[in-house]
Amino acid sequence: MLDQIHLLAAVTVLGVLEQAYFFLQVIYARRMFGISPPKISGPPEFERIFRAQVNSSEYFPIFLALLWQAGLFFHQGLAAALGLVYLCSRYCYFMGYRASSSERLAPIYFGTGVLWVLVAVAALGLSHFFLAHYVGLNILRLLTA
Amino acid sequence: MLDQIHLLAAVTVLGVLEQAYFFLQVIYARRMFGISPPKISGPPEFERIFRAQVNSSEYFPIFLALLWQAGLFFHQGLAAALGLVYLCSRYCYFMGYRASSSERLAPIYFGTGVLWVLVAVAALGLSHFFLAHYVGLNILRLLTA
Amino acid sequence: MLDQIHLLAAVTVLGVLEQAYFFLQVIYARRMFGISPPKISGPPEFERIFRAQVNSSEYFPIFLALLWQAGLFFHQGLAAALGLVYLCSRYCYFMGYRASSSERLAPIYFGTGVLWVLVAVAALGLSHFFLAHYVGLNILRLLTA
Repeated sequence: MLDQIHLLAAVTVLGVLEQAYFFLQVIYARRMFGISPPKISGPPEFERIFRAQVNSSEYFPIFLALLWQAGLFFHQGLAAALGLVYLCSRYCYFMGYRASSSERLAPIYFGTGVLWVLVAVAALGLSHFFLAHYVGLNILRLLTA
Repeated sequence: MLDQIHLLAAVTVLGVLEQAYFFLQVIYARRMFGISPPKISGPPEFERIFRAQVNSSEYFPIFLALLWQAGLFFHQGLAAALGLVYLCSRYCYFMGYRASSSERLAPIYFGTGVLWVLVAVAALGLSHFFLAHYVGLNILRLLTA
Repeated sequence: MLDQIHLLAAVTVLGVLEQAYFFLQVIYARRMFGISPPKISGPPEFERIFRAQVNSSEYFPIFLALLWQAGLFFHQGLAAALGLVYLCSRYCYFMGYRASSSERLAPIYFGTGVLWVLVAVAALGLSHFFLAHYVGLNILRLLTA
């Protein structure tokens, strides 16, 4: 069973390490700007780093949910590859947002696009499974016959 | 194996689409009220939509965790049905909160109730598994014997 | 299959109950300090409880992701035990943060340490699987031969 999820598991752990990196950046920014918890407001330079981390945290469960459904019901390798592309776009988003609000836009649009591809891949895989399971219709076999 | 999780996977993807809808509503509200990131405060009309999305994001991993444990250890169909009811209550919560703070109350109470049912279902399924696995006591078989 | 994940599932449900407890504390604090949603700012006593819940919510998906990869690819019992230790440290963190900002530090450092151990355990298990799967190298067998 593990050979059907090991790539998804590896991308998941990489994603956790990226989240850890973002959390550390907020801790450094708190020290640099002298903003102690529980305060979350400060100069725009701090608020951009803080919001970049919060946004990444909010998207993380969504990303994992899509990664695993796409990998389990469509193709593990494709889902893991898309997952790596997403993690790269998140890194660019964080670095862009830290520099300026407008520089976050290109990577967030790209990353959201990758998530929509994962949605489509998961939906395709699930549709194929539902048709085969409930209607007895195997589309892949029909197409290749 | 996939036939034991396909309903859970489908509800998971639906839940992701609902979260995507909530994110889009915040983006539209930011444009309408002219509140650019990283700012998160503004008129109550904006803050209600923003907080509705944040609250839904915080509950999303909790919902998924319960959905899957209830589905794996008790009954996939029941867990998926409860999951659909929860997603509906979340939609009503979001729409209610957007209208006024008090209109969020009824759907959030209902949705939290659904989550507690999922907790109970997961706990029942896990208790049954633990008793059978460690004590050798099969309650279902005792009840039907 | 369920006997390979039942301890992980039980710790997951316990973690959900802990999150529910944190959410309730915020609701009580809102009532006590008279801070109605969507407001999130108030006296430091309220903001500390609020931020403790937000921080715990942000870490929850990260914790679950590590718990399951460590449990699936290394050892379920060890991962579940580390998970219980983490949940205890989160409780201490919440109670400490409620009392004062500085009292959150010791438990958050400890809890983060537990997460890093889970990262290491998951990475070890995954590395072992990748080596055996792609290189045909079984380290455990080599060590015990």
